[in-house]
Amino acid sequence: MNLNKLNNPFLIDTKDLDIHEINKIFSEASQFKSNKNKRTSNILKGVDVCLAFFEPSTRTHLSFELASKRLGANTIVFPALSSSQTKGETVLDTILTFEAMEFDIFIIRLSDIETHKILVDSTKSIIINAGDGHNQHPSQALLDAFTLTEKLGDLKNKKITIVGDVKHSRVARSNIDILKKIGVNLSICSPDELMPDSFEDWNIGRYSNINESIEDGNQIMLLRVQNERMRNKLNTSIDEYRKNFAITQSTIEKHKEFLFLHPGPVNYGFELDYNLLFHKNCLIQTQVNNGVYIRMAILSLLRDYVR
Amino acid sequence: MNLNKLNNPFLIDTKDLDIHEINKIFSEASQFKSNKNKRTSNILKGVDVCLAFFEPSTRTHLSFELASKRLGANTIVFPALSSSQTKGETVLDTILTFEAMEFDIFIIRLSDIETHKILVDSTKSIIINAGDGHNQHPSQALLDAFTLTEKLGDLKNKKITIVGDVKHSRVARSNIDILKKIGVNLSICSPDELMPDSFEDWNIGRYSNINESIEDGNQIMLLRVQNERMRNKLNTSIDEYRKNFAITQSTIEKHKEFLFLHPGPVNYGFELDYNLLFHKNCLIQTQVNNGVYIRMAILSLLRDYVR
Amino acid sequence: MNLNKLNNPFLIDTKDLDIHEINKIFSEASQFKSNKNKRTSNILKGVDVCLAFFEPSTRTHLSFELASKRLGANTIVFPALSSSQTKGETVLDTILTFEAMEFDIFIIRLSDIETHKILVDSTKSIIINAGDGHNQHPSQALLDAFTLTEKLGDLKNKKITIVGDVKHSRVARSNIDILKKIGVNLSICSPDELMPDSFEDWNIGRYSNINESIEDGNQIMLLRVQNERMRNKLNTSIDEYRKNFAITQSTIEKHKEFLFLHPGPVNYGFELDYNLLFHKNCLIQTQVNNGVYIRMAILSLLRDYVR
Repeated sequence: MNLNKLNNPFLIDTKDLDIHEINKIFSEASQFKSNKNKRTSNILKGVDVCLAFFEPSTRTHLSFELASKRLGANTIVFPALSSSQTKGETVLDTILTFEAMEFDIFIIRLSDIETHKILVDSTKSIIINAGDGHNQHPSQALLDAFTLTEKLGDLKNKKITIVGDVKHSRVARSNIDILKKIGVNLSICSPDELMPDSFEDWNIGRYSNINESIEDGNQIMLLRVQNERMRNKLNTSIDEYRKNFAITQSTIEKHKEFLFLHPGPVNYGFELDYNLLFHKNCLIQTQVNNGVYIRMAILSLLRDYVR
Repeated sequence: MNLNKLNNPFLIDTKDLDIHEINKIFSEASQFKSNKNKRTSNILKGVDVCLAFFEPSTRTHLSFELASKRLGANTIVFPALSSSQTKGETVLDTILTFEAMEFDIFIIRLSDIETHKILVDSTKSIIINAGDGHNQHPSQALLDAFTLTEKLGDLKNKKITIVGDVKHSRVARSNIDILKKIGVNLSICSPDELMPDSFEDWNIGRYSNINESIEDGNQIMLLRVQNERMRNKLNTSIDEYRKNFAITQSTIEKHKEFLFLHPGPVNYGFELDYNLLFHKNCLIQTQVNNGVYIRMAILSLLRDYVR
Repeated sequence: MNLNKLNNPFLIDTKDLDIHEINKIFSEASQFKSNKNKRTSNILKGVDVCLAFFEPSTRTHLSFELASKRLGANTIVFPALSSSQTKGETVLDTILTFEAMEFDIFIIRLSDIETHKILVDSTKSIIINAGDGHNQHPSQALLDAFTLTEKLGDLKNKKITIVGDVKHSRVARSNIDILKKIGVNLSICSPDELMPDSFEDWNIGRYSNINESIEDGNQIMLLRVQNERMRNKLNTSIDEYRKNFAITQSTIEKHKEFLFLHPGPVNYGFELDYNLLFHKNCLIQTQVNNGVYIRMAILSLLRDYVR
């Protein structure tokens, strides 16, 4: 086991990580967080980093950009959504162009699943998946698990439930893989129509509503509900959804204490009531805070693969 | 009096500044301007600066960004207008997200007045107001006063008139406060319908047209007229406005010398004739030039508040 | 001959360069390319660089930005296309504003020809033309010639044909000037309606179709065909164009070997078949790669003009 780097020169899928690497990332993130001086370093000095987000992002984008700059990299943001795509290039063409410029590290968000894999096969650069369609969002899952670990210690055998639209969520998919590797007693809680097709294969539990899960001693990972889906496509009504799958003021009042996370941005009034953002057991702001350190850790542990 | 920092870890309103601090900022800006070597420094090395402009800006944005980079900060520009707001987050949510990332300094332009105040109460970061609706634009007022001070020396008892849409101008509001603290013999000159409601409380003079003011020995601070307001909402006609509140070729010809400023961008043909941009008494380009040094000074004098 | 700098403090037109300077740029680019350590330097430390692209660009923009950051400059990207132009400023006003901020180097893409010349007359900053309408694109022509020189050695008396819409191409215009200075045996190959008006004055050859040119031993520089022009404005049909002016699978099969370039982005299926991007004689990715080094060389050789 190499102490200073990950097993692969890329982070596309949580399946690329084993439990040793997950712990290595957590340990590195802790060091960045606790040591104020380490927040600025020359670890990536002379390294060229390209951020290209072909789907919108605030948290992931800004925290990777900040992480890259804190580590001293030459950091280039390609404005994938606002400019330059006007001449009709495909995403793959654009990325092959970046590749020719010999960027050392690419941090890429895509709407599809395949492009990252093509890239890993065709490039000598380091590739970090910052989200790909419904598939994977590894850095988000790492920061989620890290945030709970800070509060609860080793998560092995701890009870955690992921609540909401598991079917369409890359955050859920990445979290389930990471949490299972850690040995969490894991469940999901979704309306039937938002249950993932592959649930049977996952060998995890299921609750039919969030209250049972909390009563059972679970910590809660909420997922984002897309407004448009709520309004138009679900058979579950908003009232029904809020009663069984949301954290409301009354959820907090009627249960014993539990921690809750959300990857953001929250649809306040749907899956979470606004004032609960400031509740002492709400870890949303801590997640954002840890997001920067987890991303510094990932970049730092991939540094040795720079050609 | 601390020589190296401002009284508060923020600059939201010109009321946050006393005359000692105004002079401290001018002195620091002068040093940056006169000493070419000081233009690049490590004053903000390892400091994380976030620029978030929720309203358009060229001058203020670019000069704060350049100031921040010259001082060696990790500088992140959040593209508030073009991206990422697409998922329906409120401005305050977005800023709370930034706050969780532990940026040391926020430079924020907003369309409202309240958000900056909420931020100062809720954050441990340094907050700089880069314009908030019709309310305040402190760095602009500082660079305006600094530019006139370079030309005229101490502005105490000097005559200055602010001309145009004082009612809706954050530049005017900030300038009036700064110039009164300096002891300027201050007046405004606006059509009745663009006079501010609180004029009576301000204890400053008024001219009914710009020519009287110039004849009286005033230097002129023009304000930007919004085209749409001129065309649709004013009772004052364009001809009447230009005759009484604009600087035209004939204004220059019929009066003795006077200096004139404008915060930009100018609506040429309304409040100023285009060719006068290159007149020797026009200070517009000098204002832009000083804007960078004033912003370097502000950042530099807030540096000691970084956690 | 000064070894460390160009003759002029600007690069607006390839006419600004003589053969000595072209060779100097190639030599400097080779050094950056071969010496991995030289890729990151402090050559532009403390130098303020402003990129302002008033027309879309991926390759030129990113490679100039990367070059500037690798050399350690304070690099500011003005988002000319997405923001801030909303208040109705002219391009020249905006650039005069930048000028007042004392940027040391401007890298500017414009839709017109005149603005760069006005800038050179009015500014003390260094100006680099990153494309101006149909007129010039000097850094592209330099990287094209450099890429062929790497493969073929000195290009003097070598046969090269520029194929496609020469009439509207700034890339062609800059390349013709550079390649003639180098002493290339140069020809163009365009449909009559896309022949430049000034062809007779240029004293270069002409082929009526690409196959003749290849048979004659020419290397091929393809130009981008604008889809809209192909579809609506040309008398030449798409089939006819592809038969006489494109590189297709059958072109490759029926001829002896030849190298081919394209400035990108390619309209695959028009001037080039998609799979040929990966052909061993296709230099497109090499062009992009060299683009960064050529731009590092240009910036580096202009550095001594920084005030």
